[in-house]
Amino acid sequence: MPRWDPRAEDRLREAALELFLKHGYENVTVAQITERAGLTRRSFSRYFTDKRDVLFTGSEQLPAALARSVRHADSTLSPFGALLTALMDISSVLADQAPLAAQRRAVVRASPELQERGLTKFAAVTDAVADALRDRGTAESEATLLAQVGVAIFRTAFDRWTDQPNDVGLPAYIREAAAELAASLGNVDFAALPRP
Amino acid sequence: MPRWDPRAEDRLREAALELFLKHGYENVTVAQITERAGLTRRSFSRYFTDKRDVLFTGSEQLPAALARSVRHADSTLSPFGALLTALMDISSVLADQAPLAAQRRAVVRASPELQERGLTKFAAVTDAVADALRDRGTAESEATLLAQVGVAIFRTAFDRWTDQPNDVGLPAYIREAAAELAASLGNVDFAALPRP
Repeated sequence: MPRWDPRAEDRLREAALELFLKHGYENVTVAQITERAGLTRRSFSRYFTDKRDVLFTGSEQLPAALARSVRHADSTLSPFGALLTALMDISSVLADQAPLAAQRRAVVRASPELQERGLTKFAAVTDAVADALRDRGTAESEATLLAQVGVAIFRTAFDRWTDQPNDVGLPAYIREAAAELAASLGNVDFAALPRP
Repeated sequence: MPRWDPRAEDRLREAALELFLKHGYENVTVAQITERAGLTRRSFSRYFTDKRDVLFTGSEQLPAALARSVRHADSTLSPFGALLTALMDISSVLADQAPLAAQRRAVVRASPELQERGLTKFAAVTDAVADALRDRGTAESEATLLAQVGVAIFRTAFDRWTDQPNDVGLPAYIREAAAELAASLGNVDFAALPRP
């Protein structure tokens, strides 16, 4: 019986991603993953429910964690200020996902089933954030709009951060994407837009 | 054999939405829809592939139509200006969806299957718009961010427009949501945000 291995979870995740990238997510079994990692099915079950869980583990905590952070952000902040602060707060939770994020993204992109799953996950995050913004007094429809935009900023920042491994943390990328978007929107002369 | 009825499509859609709202989307059959509308299965097949199509018909043209409009927008417009112009352009196509949109939304909201379908549709719109922005010279990652934000503005504007039937057109709601978002983002003092 294998002794407890503090790196077991990482080894399983690395083995799974390698196999998914090589053979396609749909064609890989849990048995192949554990064999490649040199671990048992029991070890696998200690960390993951099934092979899909290898890709999405941890994400089920994101909606509640972000919503909590939005609710607890300084009460003097504007709705969007509170949202940005919450996104930066949550970054630390995701730090250990960075090394494998690019491979993970390639696997998800290649599978319609996984893409749908990802969209559903992001929708859950959006709903939770919108609820939290409403609790801070933001109007229903504005809260939904800001939550969608916050999630878009977060996805952009996360992808940029994990595309170019370096010492700059995720919060800096969140700040950058938000500032970039603010500049893009601020540049538009709404009165001068062609009237359809 | 029933004569050709210019309102057949609308009657089928109205009957379907009434039944979906009353009994739940999953529990309604095409036979029930045609019976309620007083039309035949053959009439139904002339307009819709299946009962899900009653809710999403027309939406398959949206990605290409929006992308075309982004590509053809005045070349002096900024990326976000081009995107907004395209969103307002496309509004006319959707004018006849307004009367039933609120019911449609309630049906989709009640069914996880339909919600997933809706998310996939919006993702297709986002991808097409991002491609079109890249064709205008916008950088990869910025194009994706702007496309996601454009779709969020569009969804917000469409929901507001169909929630309160009035004479104000969809383009005005798009302009309003975009201006509101620009103000929210413009208000944030990025340097003053708490550093995590």
